[in-house]
Amino acid sequence: MVNQEFVKKLVTKNENKIVLLVMDGVGGLPNEFGNTEMEVAYTPNLDNIVKEGISGIADPVSMGITPGSGPGHLGIFGYDPVKWQIGRGVLAALGIGFPIQKKDVAARGNFATLDEKGNITDRRAGRIPTETCKKLTEKIQNEITEIDGVKIFIKPVMDYRFVLILRGEGLSDKIADTDPQITGVKPLPAKPLDDSAKKTADILNKFIEKAHKIIENEHPANGLLLRGFSEYPDIPPMEEVYGLNPAAIATYPMYKGLAKLVGMEILNVPGMEITDELKVLKENYEKYDFFYFHVKKTDSYGEDGNFNAKVHLIEEVDKIIVPEILKLNPTVFAITGDHSTPAKMKQHSFHGVPFVLLSPYARPDRAEYFSEREIGTKGGLGRFEAKNEIILMLAHALKLKKFGA
Amino acid sequence: MVNQEFVKKLVTKNENKIVLLVMDGVGGLPNEFGNTEMEVAYTPNLDNIVKEGISGIADPVSMGITPGSGPGHLGIFGYDPVKWQIGRGVLAALGIGFPIQKKDVAARGNFATLDEKGNITDRRAGRIPTETCKKLTEKIQNEITEIDGVKIFIKPVMDYRFVLILRGEGLSDKIADTDPQITGVKPLPAKPLDDSAKKTADILNKFIEKAHKIIENEHPANGLLLRGFSEYPDIPPMEEVYGLNPAAIATYPMYKGLAKLVGMEILNVPGMEITDELKVLKENYEKYDFFYFHVKKTDSYGEDGNFNAKVHLIEEVDKIIVPEILKLNPTVFAITGDHSTPAKMKQHSFHGVPFVLLSPYARPDRAEYFSEREIGTKGGLGRFEAKNEIILMLAHALKLKKFGA
Repeated sequence: MVNQEFVKKLVTKNENKIVLLVMDGVGGLPNEFGNTEMEVAYTPNLDNIVKEGISGIADPVSMGITPGSGPGHLGIFGYDPVKWQIGRGVLAALGIGFPIQKKDVAARGNFATLDEKGNITDRRAGRIPTETCKKLTEKIQNEITEIDGVKIFIKPVMDYRFVLILRGEGLSDKIADTDPQITGVKPLPAKPLDDSAKKTADILNKFIEKAHKIIENEHPANGLLLRGFSEYPDIPPMEEVYGLNPAAIATYPMYKGLAKLVGMEILNVPGMEITDELKVLKENYEKYDFFYFHVKKTDSYGEDGNFNAKVHLIEEVDKIIVPEILKLNPTVFAITGDHSTPAKMKQHSFHGVPFVLLSPYARPDRAEYFSEREIGTKGGLGRFEAKNEIILMLAHALKLKKFGA
Repeated sequence: MVNQEFVKKLVTKNENKIVLLVMDGVGGLPNEFGNTEMEVAYTPNLDNIVKEGISGIADPVSMGITPGSGPGHLGIFGYDPVKWQIGRGVLAALGIGFPIQKKDVAARGNFATLDEKGNITDRRAGRIPTETCKKLTEKIQNEITEIDGVKIFIKPVMDYRFVLILRGEGLSDKIADTDPQITGVKPLPAKPLDDSAKKTADILNKFIEKAHKIIENEHPANGLLLRGFSEYPDIPPMEEVYGLNPAAIATYPMYKGLAKLVGMEILNVPGMEITDELKVLKENYEKYDFFYFHVKKTDSYGEDGNFNAKVHLIEEVDKIIVPEILKLNPTVFAITGDHSTPAKMKQHSFHGVPFVLLSPYARPDRAEYFSEREIGTKGGLGRFEAKNEIILMLAHALKLKKFGA
């Protein structure tokens, strides 16, 4: 497996277009009749692409590893997900669509319940509703916007969870969690893990003290716990590494954030439907040479354990989205997921993910329909790590020069 | 994937023989009827080997990377083509059969046209014919054979292109190109990229000055441009790493040069036909335990876009070469290419390359005939990087001991 520095030297630009359709969590497991979501779905268009193109099973990170959405997407964008680890604080900020910037430090937060001695009695403050969380973060934000020249942002996520973002010079994410993960003890102070983080820890401790004052009479949410401190990573953009002019079409903040992280232009989608996304693809087709088109709900239905809804959505994508992308006639049309989410498991899983590539330069194989086992046993790409996908897409779009003479 | 140092410790010698038949550029893409060159070719003998042996699809460098002949061959000889990069100057010297040695520094050269101020008006000197190039290099060589104790060789390649080789102590290839890649400016002086290259740069600048004097009244070729400075790499020979006593049977200088690079004995082939090569194999069969047998024209016909000629040559190899190699009864008979050259693309491509191995110790798979998609979907070796091939060949010849107890 070659690395980005190697590929970068081979990149050559041309007008050929690449469309990457990511059905989030698309791979699955069989139902009681022995067929997976992909196999039950009636997908004549996708079947035809499998037949005409080349396919294989990709491991998002490596065999047996279940990826979160961050590593899953970084892999398919061509970034080694083990090398480029996106911290949980940053992912949480991306997830709520916060416009996080390079050098920002972010942390995930819980509202908690403290007793009169300041010891934690409930790490989740009785799971207060999102509305209360919103009210509390606004109350704190109204009184604290800056400490020692560093800007402070506190934003609600869901239930008792919030995100804290620090913005300013000389910050570091080398800070230990203040969440002790147990009750009956006080929240830990923000402790610097090395000297570079002393200033950040100092600001955090001032913040915690002030915030605790502001909510001391609230109940049950009168305390804060912080964890997963992380810095917005300095990832080289896709333009620099792969010579692409990439655009992202997604409806959920997390995926827009991940796409922005690798330097994609985020196109505004005026709605939450796949048809809204399709409209944006068509309108912008001339302006970019790489499109990341994200379908969220295959994963959501998988996580809900709703086998039939996942089947139906795959059918909708096949019927509504796929033919229209084919009409645009990109040089490369690739279809995959960022991980599998079998309805049977109601969560992301470690199973390989089908990857299908259609191009005039694809060498046909024996796979004939859109099924994990068909692609896994008759696909010409075999089994491989997902970070190869971008190289395969560039190659089939003739965007890579020969290596050596 | 294990490295050479690892394998080296496991090597054990025996009398078993390995024949590696490399059909240059053998993989392809389908014609208008949906079949590749390999699939159209009638190859009963190769089909039988696929049926009896084990096969798979190899990526010469890594998925999606199109290799030149250098990296393509290094991979199948068991040398990581990313680690061992052969410079363009050295490859050019190998390509004309110049007996380049370790520590030599080589560069590719162009004859160019300079105006009265010394500025470049044509980087290719009006594409002078090879005959003129030969005359000019001889004129220079007659007057310059040594500078400051360093031997100078200047040899014609084709049209306006030549090779320059320096031989002596303390040379370095850390020299910037003198070819500015544009017209309207003077050729650049040879500039050392680090202190180790000062002496080499000094000699090169003396050479350029003298050579320019010698050809100053020539037209249109009155200037020299040099690029791709490279040192003959210090690659450990196959004997040392793999315990083999290897011989090369090839007709074109480039492939003889690449084989020599890894320490093979180059057997003299008295002709350019595959039957000439076969005769040499038979005559020398007792003397070596590893034979690299190179068939060039599968690649040449691919580059010409001549689908039918490529098909025909594959059939010739099947009919004439394969049965005779089978009669010799080597313990391992492996058949592959150094890369694919689909007639459809008229160039080396990024597609995987079929690899077939016949041995009494090969575990049979389900592949039944000599076809990329058959081997790619039913071959027992799956998809793998070509640098594993030598290990597979050694293993099936029982030339590797057990690792660990």
